[in-house]
Amino acid sequence: MTKKVKAKKTQRQDPACMTLGIDLGGTKILAAVVDQQGRILGTAKRRTHPEQGVDEVIARIAKTAQEAVANAHLDMTAIQAAGIGAPGVADHNTGVLEFAPNLPDWTNIPLGTRLEQMLGVPVLVENDVNAGTYGEATAGVAHDFGSVVGIFPGTGIGGGIVLDGKLWRGARNAAAEIGHMVVMIDGPQCGCGRRGCIEALASRTAIERDIAGEIRGGRSSLVTTLIDIEREPITSGVLARALEENDPVITDVVGRAAYHLGVFTASLVNALDPQCIVYGGGLIEACGDFMLPIIRTNTYRHLIRPVHPDALPILEAALGDNAVVIGSALLASACAQAEGV
Amino acid sequence: MTKKVKAKKTQRQDPACMTLGIDLGGTKILAAVVDQQGRILGTAKRRTHPEQGVDEVIARIAKTAQEAVANAHLDMTAIQAAGIGAPGVADHNTGVLEFAPNLPDWTNIPLGTRLEQMLGVPVLVENDVNAGTYGEATAGVAHDFGSVVGIFPGTGIGGGIVLDGKLWRGARNAAAEIGHMVVMIDGPQCGCGRRGCIEALASRTAIERDIAGEIRGGRSSLVTTLIDIEREPITSGVLARALEENDPVITDVVGRAAYHLGVFTASLVNALDPQCIVYGGGLIEACGDFMLPIIRTNTYRHLIRPVHPDALPILEAALGDNAVVIGSALLASACAQAEGV
Repeated sequence: MTKKVKAKKTQRQDPACMTLGIDLGGTKILAAVVDQQGRILGTAKRRTHPEQGVDEVIARIAKTAQEAVANAHLDMTAIQAAGIGAPGVADHNTGVLEFAPNLPDWTNIPLGTRLEQMLGVPVLVENDVNAGTYGEATAGVAHDFGSVVGIFPGTGIGGGIVLDGKLWRGARNAAAEIGHMVVMIDGPQCGCGRRGCIEALASRTAIERDIAGEIRGGRSSLVTTLIDIEREPITSGVLARALEENDPVITDVVGRAAYHLGVFTASLVNALDPQCIVYGGGLIEACGDFMLPIIRTNTYRHLIRPVHPDALPILEAALGDNAVVIGSALLASACAQAEGV
Repeated sequence: MTKKVKAKKTQRQDPACMTLGIDLGGTKILAAVVDQQGRILGTAKRRTHPEQGVDEVIARIAKTAQEAVANAHLDMTAIQAAGIGAPGVADHNTGVLEFAPNLPDWTNIPLGTRLEQMLGVPVLVENDVNAGTYGEATAGVAHDFGSVVGIFPGTGIGGGIVLDGKLWRGARNAAAEIGHMVVMIDGPQCGCGRRGCIEALASRTAIERDIAGEIRGGRSSLVTTLIDIEREPITSGVLARALEENDPVITDVVGRAAYHLGVFTASLVNALDPQCIVYGGGLIEACGDFMLPIIRTNTYRHLIRPVHPDALPILEAALGDNAVVIGSALLASACAQAEGV
């Protein structure tokens, strides 16, 4: 009790206890003011328009951030620090975004320094999936757990690793590239050029390839009545509709992907022995009801040290589109506190 | 500077700065007195004789430990703590050895408490491969690196994970069971009952199976002149001799195992991004000259974030049979210091 009262007092005495979280995507920029418990007080959104160049995008990020602060009925003096989750390789020490596959021309951009100049607060630059996993592990579905592996299947498969409450970034900020762990040596070609990565077996892209293969092989599927599969992508939403109708081709292909994810999850648990697993991403948001039970069964079946499912829950992410802004904000907050800002 | 002088003084005032390290194997017990730099001051060795029962083995462990102290020309007052590496699932918090596949009847044995009563010092119980990896990461070939993954192919494939200088044990002391990470879904049967674990593709046992398959398939190999493959095991030493003679069957099979290990190592690096990898174990000790170059080439080839080999060295373990005693001793020493013993 005393502790709670004390915390409240401190909060009142020090107005700069809010943090800005920013999610820089290839399509849109989302910014939010987040309190120390991970609650969102105000947000703003803008299209990224990467084709307008790096400078213009950075200006748009700053504008979106300032708008979020205004929407929270605060001014920048209330903001202690900002965190930005970016879709690429980020060096959180230097604030440099080294490389971002979905943002052409973004190579070695000093995003942290640039935004610090514009916003007037320290800015932490982090990989977006790392930030999202940290969000789920601190203010989302896994907030009760210290050690969490996040797995996010969508167009690709991203991941994040939180150990003892801290984001594990690795020696070169290259950790948690779990989509490129090989689960089928000499298996199907991956977008990365190698073979048999889990991304080449269980991402939406892999599922799309396998459905096309089944249809070319002569099987008929509802999907061909929903979209023109020669021209349109098989979105996660289309998969979900076909699963609802128990379409046999989609059930087979998505079921096989979920089986692969289960074996893969067990491998990660055999290596890292976390307290829980969080599954999120577009594919899970749309098809989680079908996929997660298969993932769970096959994870527990492939553990070398059997464990009761309650002791190692496999949870569905809860923060949705807000995971990255909340995680970035809380990472920046933890960093500011560690540095005594 | 001041700090260093202080540390020296403390060391002189307190004679109990040595640690005992014990390696409990299915065949032999090795004990050593180790200083804080990981140097061995005295050792002793005894056969385990697990068939004589748990009590007798524990008595033999204590006797071996005391002999090592005597051989270091010390008495027990010089010993701060002891660490024991055991071939199974150990709970370092309770000192209970939960399960040890090579020591029949060893289920939930309070090994720590029992040895504490006999030796009069705190005893840390740890999994042996974890201890060996910690030894290499602190006083062995990887002592310059904070984050190290140890991979030890032999009859099975063991592993250890050290992150930021600390052993990563996981939430249930079940981490680093890397031998049972699946690299070939629906691949060859593993001793654990599942399919496609790296242990089922690249352990000595897997190599033996594949050689027998090649010979049954009609290929001839030098191995059949060295041993009676129907009755004798193909030891790592036999493999090494055949490799020296460029035997095509053995070169093919061991080369394929090394390729699999390379892809697997890259997967581990993609997930954990450590500072270095240490390879040890019976298979590497005997066949490392042939296997390690193949492992290295295929690791670097399968990384999602390319890195210069100097920035991520793949090293051969240096402590050999002493890795577990040194690692156990240094773990016990770190634990005693953290607890202010």
